Amino acid sequence: MKRFFSPHQTGHAPLRELNNGEWMDFAESPARVSSMLAALGQCEAPIDHGLGPILAVHDADYVAFLQSAHRDWLKAGRSGDAIGYAFPVVGRRKLDLSRIDGRLGQYGFDAATPIASGTWDAAYWGAQTALSAFDAVAGGGHCGFALCRPPGHHSGKDYFGGYCFLNNAAIVAQRAVDSGLGPVAVLDVDYHHGNGTQDIFYERGDVLFASIHADPAMDYPYFWGHADETGQGEGEGATFNQPLARGTTWAGYEPALDKALNAISQFGAKFLVISYGADTFEADPISFLKLTTQDMHTMGQRISTLALPCVTVMEGGYNIEALGSNVDAFLSGLEGG
Amino acid sequence: MKRFFSPHQTGHAPLRELNNGEWMDFAESPARVSSMLAALGQCEAPIDHGLGPILAVHDADYVAFLQSAHRDWLKAGRSGDAIGYAFPVVGRRKLDLSRIDGRLGQYGFDAATPIASGTWDAAYWGAQTALSAFDAVAGGGHCGFALCRPPGHHSGKDYFGGYCFLNNAAIVAQRAVDSGLGPVAVLDVDYHHGNGTQDIFYERGDVLFASIHADPAMDYPYFWGHADETGQGEGEGATFNQPLARGTTWAGYEPALDKALNAISQFGAKFLVISYGADTFEADPISFLKLTTQDMHTMGQRISTLALPCVTVMEGGYNIEALGSNVDAFLSGLEGG
Ligand SMILES: [Zn+2]
Ligand SMILES: [Zn+2]
Repeated sequence: MKRFFSPHQTGHAPLRELNNGEWMDFAESPARVSSMLAALGQCEAPIDHGLGPILAVHDADYVAFLQSAHRDWLKAGRSGDAIGYAFPVVGRRKLDLSRIDGRLGQYGFDAATPIASGTWDAAYWGAQTALSAFDAVAGGGHCGFALCRPPGHHSGKDYFGGYCFLNNAAIVAQRAVDSGLGPVAVLDVDYHHGNGTQDIFYERGDVLFASIHADPAMDYPYFWGHADETGQGEGEGATFNQPLARGTTWAGYEPALDKALNAISQFGAKFLVISYGADTFEADPISFLKLTTQDMHTMGQRISTLALPCVTVMEGGYNIEALGSNVDAFLSGLEGG
Repeated sequence: MKRFFSPHQTGHAPLRELNNGEWMDFAESPARVSSMLAALGQCEAPIDHGLGPILAVHDADYVAFLQSAHRDWLKAGRSGDAIGYAFPVVGRRKLDLSRIDGRLGQYGFDAATPIASGTWDAAYWGAQTALSAFDAVAGGGHCGFALCRPPGHHSGKDYFGGYCFLNNAAIVAQRAVDSGLGPVAVLDVDYHHGNGTQDIFYERGDVLFASIHADPAMDYPYFWGHADETGQGEGEGATFNQPLARGTTWAGYEPALDKALNAISQFGAKFLVISYGADTFEADPISFLKLTTQDMHTMGQRISTLALPCVTVMEGGYNIEALGSNVDAFLSGLEGG
C-alpha cells in the first residue's frame, strides 16, 4: 500500500485549545506525525494538484479565509493563535464581515481549533497527500494511505472545527466521483462523528456516508451524528450514523461495523474512502471507546472483505505512544495481512 | 419615574470571558450596579411574578437548562464558571444532550458569557425588575426604569450570549401585548445589536423592533443586525436595523434616531420598550461610538416626544465611572427634564 506524507504538514502547531472551560495543550500536535512515521517507515511525498480538487468540495470564500486568517489576526494587533468566540447559530449565511473575530466565527463552529501561522500550508498539503493516495489507487493500486494532518472530517464546505480545516475524505470522495469511479462510500471509524463529511454529502445520493462513533449526546461534536440523521432530498438514506455508548469494546463495535459494511454493499459502492481515527483506542486520552491494537487489525481485515479500491485518510488519535502501532495494525489488516 | 432593582442581581459574578483569543476580566461586572445606584438613588424592590411571563418568551427547556447549568458543570467535576466551546452552526434543533459542554453549546452562541453560581438567580430577578417597571406603567405611570443586570437583548427564546440570559425587553414587550396595550415597539439604543430581541419577534407583526447600533461587520454580534434584516412572514417590515460606523458622533446618531422614531410612529405603536445601553458613550472601554453624557440626555428628550407609555430596561455600558451619570442623563431627558 502506498503511503503519502509531506513535511509541510507538521508546520501546523497551535499551542493550546479551549476545553472544559480551560486552556489545555493542543491535543492534535505535530508529535502525532513522528509516532506514525516511526511505525510506518518511509512515506512518499505528494504531488501538488493545486486548488482545483479542494474547491470541488469547499467554497472559494472559505478557502480565501483560511489562507489569510492568521495574517489578518496579526494585522488586528493580536498575537498567538487565532481563535473565534462567537458563532452564528441562527440564520447562518454569507456575510461580508471585516473584523477577524467575526470571520473566525462565520467560518468556524468551536473555540477548540486555533489557526496558527502554518495552518493553511499544512492543511493544503494534507489535502494533496490525500489526492496523491487517490492517484495511486485510481492508477491501479488496491489501497492507498494518506497520513493527513491536520485531520479533516469535522470540516464542512465552508467551516472549520474539531482540529479540521479541509475535508480530506470528502475531497477524495469527490475526486472519485469526478473520475467516474462512483458510487462512493465514506466509512468513518474515528471516535468522533464526521460532521463535516456528513454535511457535504447530506443531500446527495451518489456518496454514502456511514459512521460509527461515540454518542454525540456525550461527545463532540454534540450537534451532529445522531441516529435520526439519515440524509435529505436525493441524499435521503445515504447517511448512516451508529452512535455507540462510551466504554464499548470490540464486542459492541463489531456488529456496528458489520451493519456499516452491509450498508456499503447494498449501496453498490464501487469505491471506498475510510476516515480512520485511532482515537477509538482504549488508552486514548480524550476518548472513551475500548478497542485494542489487535481490534484495529481485525477492523482493517473486516473492511478488506468489501474488496473495494480504497483510500484511507488519517483523522484523529491522541495517544501518541500507541498511535503508530494502531495505524500500522489497521493498515496491515486492511491489506489482508 | 419609578425605578426597580433587586440585590439578587449582583450575585451574578463570573470572573473572566474569552475575548480576542485571551481571557479578560468579565466586563459586565457587579460594579456596574454600584455606579448606577449611586447616581439614581433608591430603587424599589421588584414583585415576584413567577416564571409565567418569562415562559411567555423563553422555551421551557432553555429555562430549565439555565436553572441547572452551573450545578451540572460542578457535577461534571469542573470548577469556576461554566463556558461552552462548540456551537451548532448547521442544523440547530432540539436535542437531548447529556454532557454539560454540549448543552452549553446547544443553548449558547459565544464563549464570552460564562454561567456562574448566581447567574440564574440574578437573571430571574432582573426579569422581575423589568416586569415590576411594566406594572408601574400599566398602572398609570408614564415611564418606568428597570435596572436590569445581567442585560437581556442578546438572549433569544432558547439561547444565551453577549452577557445576556433572559430577554428583559422582550418579556416586557410580550407582557404589554398580552395586556392588550399593543402594538408595541422595542427601541434598542445599546451599542450592540439586540439580536435576541430581533429573533424573538422576527416573524411577528405586532411588535416592531428598531435598533441603532455599531455595524456588525466590525462589532459583536457580527451575524445579526445587518440592514437587510427586515423581518419575515407576518413580521416583514417590522424589524428596522440602522448600523452605524465606528466613531459616529451625535451628528450621525441623531438622524438615525429620528428615522427610528418615525418608524415607531408610523407603526402605530401604543407602548414603547427601550433597551438602553450606555456603551454608546465616547469613553466606553469596549465600544466605539462617540456620544457624550449630554447626548444621552438629548436622546432621552427626543424619545420622549413620542409621548408613549414606556419601560426602559438596562442593557450594556462598561465605563463604570460614568455609567451612573449616563443612565441618569438619559432618564432625566426621557422624563422631559
Ligand atoms: Zn476523533
Ligand atoms: Zn452593548
